[in-house]
Amino acid sequence: MTTKPLLRIALVGTGFMGRMHTQAWRTAPRFFDLPAQPQPALLVGHRDEPTATAAQQWGWPEHTTDWREAVARDDIDLIDICTPGDTHAEIALAALAAGKHVLCEKPLAGSVADAEQMARAARTAPGVAMCGFSYRRTPALALAHRLIGAGRLGEIRHVRAQYLQDWLSDPDAAHTWRLDRERSGSGALGDIGAHSIDLAQWLTGQRITAVSATMHTFVRSRPRGGSAEGLGAVADATGERLPVTVDDATAFTAQFDDGALGVFEATRMATGRRNANRIEINGERGSIAFDFERMNELEVYDVVDDDAQGFRRVQATEARHPYAGAWWPPGHGLGYEHLFVHQAADLVRAIAGEAPASPSFDEAVQVQRVLAAVEDSAGHDSIRTAVPGGDASERRNPA
Amino acid sequence: MTTKPLLRIALVGTGFMGRMHTQAWRTAPRFFDLPAQPQPALLVGHRDEPTATAAQQWGWPEHTTDWREAVARDDIDLIDICTPGDTHAEIALAALAAGKHVLCEKPLAGSVADAEQMARAARTAPGVAMCGFSYRRTPALALAHRLIGAGRLGEIRHVRAQYLQDWLSDPDAAHTWRLDRERSGSGALGDIGAHSIDLAQWLTGQRITAVSATMHTFVRSRPRGGSAEGLGAVADATGERLPVTVDDATAFTAQFDDGALGVFEATRMATGRRNANRIEINGERGSIAFDFERMNELEVYDVVDDDAQGFRRVQATEARHPYAGAWWPPGHGLGYEHLFVHQAADLVRAIAGEAPASPSFDEAVQVQRVLAAVEDSAGHDSIRTAVPGGDASERRNPA
Amino acid sequence: MTTKPLLRIALVGTGFMGRMHTQAWRTAPRFFDLPAQPQPALLVGHRDEPTATAAQQWGWPEHTTDWREAVARDDIDLIDICTPGDTHAEIALAALAAGKHVLCEKPLAGSVADAEQMARAARTAPGVAMCGFSYRRTPALALAHRLIGAGRLGEIRHVRAQYLQDWLSDPDAAHTWRLDRERSGSGALGDIGAHSIDLAQWLTGQRITAVSATMHTFVRSRPRGGSAEGLGAVADATGERLPVTVDDATAFTAQFDDGALGVFEATRMATGRRNANRIEINGERGSIAFDFERMNELEVYDVVDDDAQGFRRVQATEARHPYAGAWWPPGHGLGYEHLFVHQAADLVRAIAGEAPASPSFDEAVQVQRVLAAVEDSAGHDSIRTAVPGGDASERRNPA
Amino acid sequence: MTTKPLLRIALVGTGFMGRMHTQAWRTAPRFFDLPAQPQPALLVGHRDEPTATAAQQWGWPEHTTDWREAVARDDIDLIDICTPGDTHAEIALAALAAGKHVLCEKPLAGSVADAEQMARAARTAPGVAMCGFSYRRTPALALAHRLIGAGRLGEIRHVRAQYLQDWLSDPDAAHTWRLDRERSGSGALGDIGAHSIDLAQWLTGQRITAVSATMHTFVRSRPRGGSAEGLGAVADATGERLPVTVDDATAFTAQFDDGALGVFEATRMATGRRNANRIEINGERGSIAFDFERMNELEVYDVVDDDAQGFRRVQATEARHPYAGAWWPPGHGLGYEHLFVHQAADLVRAIAGEAPASPSFDEAVQVQRVLAAVEDSAGHDSIRTAVPGGDASERRNPA
Repeated sequence: MTTKPLLRIALVGTGFMGRMHTQAWRTAPRFFDLPAQPQPALLVGHRDEPTATAAQQWGWPEHTTDWREAVARDDIDLIDICTPGDTHAEIALAALAAGKHVLCEKPLAGSVADAEQMARAARTAPGVAMCGFSYRRTPALALAHRLIGAGRLGEIRHVRAQYLQDWLSDPDAAHTWRLDRERSGSGALGDIGAHSIDLAQWLTGQRITAVSATMHTFVRSRPRGGSAEGLGAVADATGERLPVTVDDATAFTAQFDDGALGVFEATRMATGRRNANRIEINGERGSIAFDFERMNELEVYDVVDDDAQGFRRVQATEARHPYAGAWWPPGHGLGYEHLFVHQAADLVRAIAGEAPASPSFDEAVQVQRVLAAVEDSAGHDSIRTAVPGGDASERRNPA
Repeated sequence: MTTKPLLRIALVGTGFMGRMHTQAWRTAPRFFDLPAQPQPALLVGHRDEPTATAAQQWGWPEHTTDWREAVARDDIDLIDICTPGDTHAEIALAALAAGKHVLCEKPLAGSVADAEQMARAARTAPGVAMCGFSYRRTPALALAHRLIGAGRLGEIRHVRAQYLQDWLSDPDAAHTWRLDRERSGSGALGDIGAHSIDLAQWLTGQRITAVSATMHTFVRSRPRGGSAEGLGAVADATGERLPVTVDDATAFTAQFDDGALGVFEATRMATGRRNANRIEINGERGSIAFDFERMNELEVYDVVDDDAQGFRRVQATEARHPYAGAWWPPGHGLGYEHLFVHQAADLVRAIAGEAPASPSFDEAVQVQRVLAAVEDSAGHDSIRTAVPGGDASERRNPA
Repeated sequence: MTTKPLLRIALVGTGFMGRMHTQAWRTAPRFFDLPAQPQPALLVGHRDEPTATAAQQWGWPEHTTDWREAVARDDIDLIDICTPGDTHAEIALAALAAGKHVLCEKPLAGSVADAEQMARAARTAPGVAMCGFSYRRTPALALAHRLIGAGRLGEIRHVRAQYLQDWLSDPDAAHTWRLDRERSGSGALGDIGAHSIDLAQWLTGQRITAVSATMHTFVRSRPRGGSAEGLGAVADATGERLPVTVDDATAFTAQFDDGALGVFEATRMATGRRNANRIEINGERGSIAFDFERMNELEVYDVVDDDAQGFRRVQATEARHPYAGAWWPPGHGLGYEHLFVHQAADLVRAIAGEAPASPSFDEAVQVQRVLAAVEDSAGHDSIRTAVPGGDASERRNPA
Repeated sequence: MTTKPLLRIALVGTGFMGRMHTQAWRTAPRFFDLPAQPQPALLVGHRDEPTATAAQQWGWPEHTTDWREAVARDDIDLIDICTPGDTHAEIALAALAAGKHVLCEKPLAGSVADAEQMARAARTAPGVAMCGFSYRRTPALALAHRLIGAGRLGEIRHVRAQYLQDWLSDPDAAHTWRLDRERSGSGALGDIGAHSIDLAQWLTGQRITAVSATMHTFVRSRPRGGSAEGLGAVADATGERLPVTVDDATAFTAQFDDGALGVFEATRMATGRRNANRIEINGERGSIAFDFERMNELEVYDVVDDDAQGFRRVQATEARHPYAGAWWPPGHGLGYEHLFVHQAADLVRAIAGEAPASPSFDEAVQVQRVLAAVEDSAGHDSIRTAVPGGDASERRNPA
């Protein structure tokens, strides 16, 4: 093990995702036999003191507030970008130009143009570039990918993806930067719908070619929140309400290039659904269904001539399942953060040339194009065909 | 009981639904204390011999092949129409004009114009007119209706309805009249999507005002089937394939008049889903979720300040639940045909003036208008906004 | 059909089960093509007026209060016994002696001796005798029986049966005759545990050879109830409490003659469980699991070399599943009363010699022997091995 | 943070549990704000080379093969014992005598006498002693404990605990030390049944006072395995079979000191059940149900006067749930290893005097007493009451 090359990491970002990536880099080499040893080297934050505190608590030996320092240093191999989306392009382009490997959180960039520039750079840069669509690393979904890739579902007809959360269902839940279009780009669509789009394209191996979309904002203003981080934000005492300028919910139908029909819905208003990242795919010979609220399970249906046909509840926790062999005995589930550990391990292997980076920036830019098409479609007032209401005398519906 | 007035019934139709309605008329008075005694009097079929056989097997004392005879006879009080949709208008209009009560299977008619004429007639006719959207009579859904009507969900934001079947997922499943647009009007949309639309409008008490739809036919031709009835049809020996002229699947987003967002999908190609008539409704203060594959259960979520919040699995089998008190002890479930028994009982009560008919023809015509708008929208090639595909050099997706 | 022989029925009992059997005899010939036509002929009740009312409501042409009349009449072919268990032996023995066919509700008799006498009589009588363990007729369980009979589970190791109800969990739920040992024999054990025992022996094809049991009565007295029927009884106004002399709950471990280990529990105090009649069987090559609260589903696990192994949720509603082909399309579930329709159909076929009666009186007497052994075991204070408690200084458990 | 006292740890054991505890000590301080800083200091193994390798891979700065060195050193504060059960007593007693804090994996000891000696020592020693029944740290179960402790279930009547695994259902699964009574003490009982016993006593706050048990070994010999660790063992090439001297499955009924009835089953032969550590508790006013295969969920039932009663599926992932606030947003589940992180955090807090150690050695010794009573009971051939089989003429069961 002492002979393993080091992979020296600079992490940019000290929020929720920064903490998550730190834990992933620490844990991956203890459970996976990797071709290089990830070494947390430099933490990059926004302001000095919180960055110092985070560096100490999370165990980063050095810290700075200038990401350009990380890019410039020769003793850094990988730049891990966990900042808000509108900063991704500048950092990633500089890092790639400097020959670094890059891990960039989703969404790839704040605009399709930026994303395309990043993808072009990544195609010719010496470093490996990967985008952080972490749900690909759920063992149950990686198993679904393997089954579909092996043709087990036959020709795909249906993709049915819902990402349902409820942290905004209370109209007095506090405002956060995630509800400000200037800073977040979009709401439910870009934050969680993007995951559904990536999963759908990755699992089926197909691209979405056209969409018809609608975007809704149910609660138009919210009390100013006292903290910046988002989900747990608490209203401050001022009583001031700030405008919500992004979508609470987005729904769209989609055409895939092999003819499959997609139905997508992303919302933060699905009361009672905490993190129901769901996807079901129906093919000619079988189906799969998944819900992240039961992330260790995959439902699998095969068309076979048997009087005991039905969806199987597969616990993707066996040694032969993707990633699961590195962990515990069957039936001992994994959690959300394991996705990031797997992502770290996969990136180390991609850097060593053992497998392509997944998702590549090219794949990530394609997600971005779908997001843009959805916004474009919704801007045309897509629920267009009116239903005549009949005359007033009809409206005597019984209770 | 001997003093109860009789309700003399003529049933038109000897197929699947005719058998079902017969069983319902027989069973309803044994389990519900009704204000009148339903009396199966006359069975009307298409051809003489099968009608005679059905009459004997099902216990109808008289039979005929002329529905006009049923309408003309003074000793018939109610015409129960279980024929294909394109015949509904003529029979129902004649029956209403003759002062009969009418129970008409869904869809109300073959066209919006016909349906509107029927609804107008029903508004002024002396008889009671009801349309057979039987799923309203599922105890779990009737409970949902009661909870929503009482305001338990607060303002409604989301309606998420899927009706998933799989009897056409095999591309060599036989052709039936249900796949011929001339005879059936539409495919998945009118057959099963219509149920979702009715449930959505009835449960929320709102109307759909606009839609954006797409309709897909995945399998364009199928082997000629040897039997007419539909789901169990077996291909005949000729090898001939007939064109499929209806939708295998339809999806649409919808706007409700109170601002809720609807997402609907109806398909006969969802491999592994036998009869997943699902609906979930999210409101500001709670949610309900239902799947007909577990028809005795309703999932209910309430926003309350409690550390044991979550969806409750309610078995709608208690004496206090709609319809359930007429049957067995809690936890002893009901089946599909009970919906029709409940429908028969409700109609007898509506005729006695105890409650309005539900759904009225007015409600049914509104469903028909939505169906027409969906077809109209889909005809405009509704998945309109293209997603640019990037250049060829991108297409190197890793497995 | 006119040439079918009649099977003329006298039904003894006008309670809950009398109504259920009436519905079954009416419905069976409409859905199953039977070798004889069941004809409800004579209803036998306890008191004249309620019997007359029931006969009229349920459609029995004649009624009486003397079951001996039914046995004596030449124009009665079958005696259907739906009275309390302590009256079964006398009626059944007389009916068998008179050459009648007999359907006898469970439990077969009030004592093992009576049951054995009935079984001996049945072995030599000309009539067919069947006991009403109706759960055998659940399509999902009949499918399980077929799978196990075909060897799909391999050698059986575990039987895990729970029958959980909760109608007595409220300590002020009213007293009923079911809680009086003189009239009911036992409590949860005989009422619901008997079903588990019958299912376990029938599904595995094995007998229970030894048991170790405990019986508990948690609530020793209850307010006198105003009605006799049981589950829905409401306390009367006197405030008087009557003693509970039967078990609220019984649990036992069991040895099967092929070496399988059984664990059984029956209770009316499982708060929240309405009618959870559950059974799971684990064999060397597979498992099945069932819960009557989802009566249309069977879970099936097969040991196969596949990375998508797991319990399959089979909806036992397809034409190829037991009984289901007589009813509706796949995914359209059946309810509790269908078990009794199936039982009626099976008995008509057994009488015609098409299949043996199931369960025979011999099988039913074996259930009775297990019940007696359980009571005998529990009478010996079977939770025998004390756990030393340690000294007082230990008892400082943290919260 | 620099001012936090260090808690210097020596870990004894380099197997599965050693790796798990290492990860827990590393992770706990990154997610919990602890009163002391755990510092992995010394790893103790059996043989030198594998211990050195583990120390390097897991990040322990020092290693040794002599646990006495760890006990003797002044710069070690806590001895974490992850060795087989028969070595626990000696190490723990020495550590306690040396003033160390002790974390001891379950089972506490190889015999009740040893365990009692350890408990006595712990009561007077200056160090804090805790036993590793890690399932107590599942957030869903900790929530159940809190709800029950607050009286939400009222008087407890039923405890229904099953721990079902299937890694031995194949009769040719390899032998391991876990199947050798000399080394493991017992089989399913001590390995997994012990967890059920601890959970049952902890959740209810009651003790088991008497048991009636049966133990089964279905497969009496197995092929010699090539690896020592257990669950994934593969048969070696010799074809030799070794005797299985422990139970494959154990079942027992139990009496709790407050009158509740317990039914327990532990097995490694429940085909299809990977790690179904299940417990259901029914009280007068409510119930809880849990299955570790869905470890992030707790089912909760309350008796309330509402027509939407039912078991709630609570995702124990909210900030107000035990432990969950330290991790991710609601609906983002945790995995098996988090139990050990929570255990480490709780122990640091217990050492700081913030809460009592849970489970104390006193609690752990009580589990051991129940295990001994179960074995004692089973040794008496506890399935004692024979069921007479009837005479041969009965045995004509229909298929």
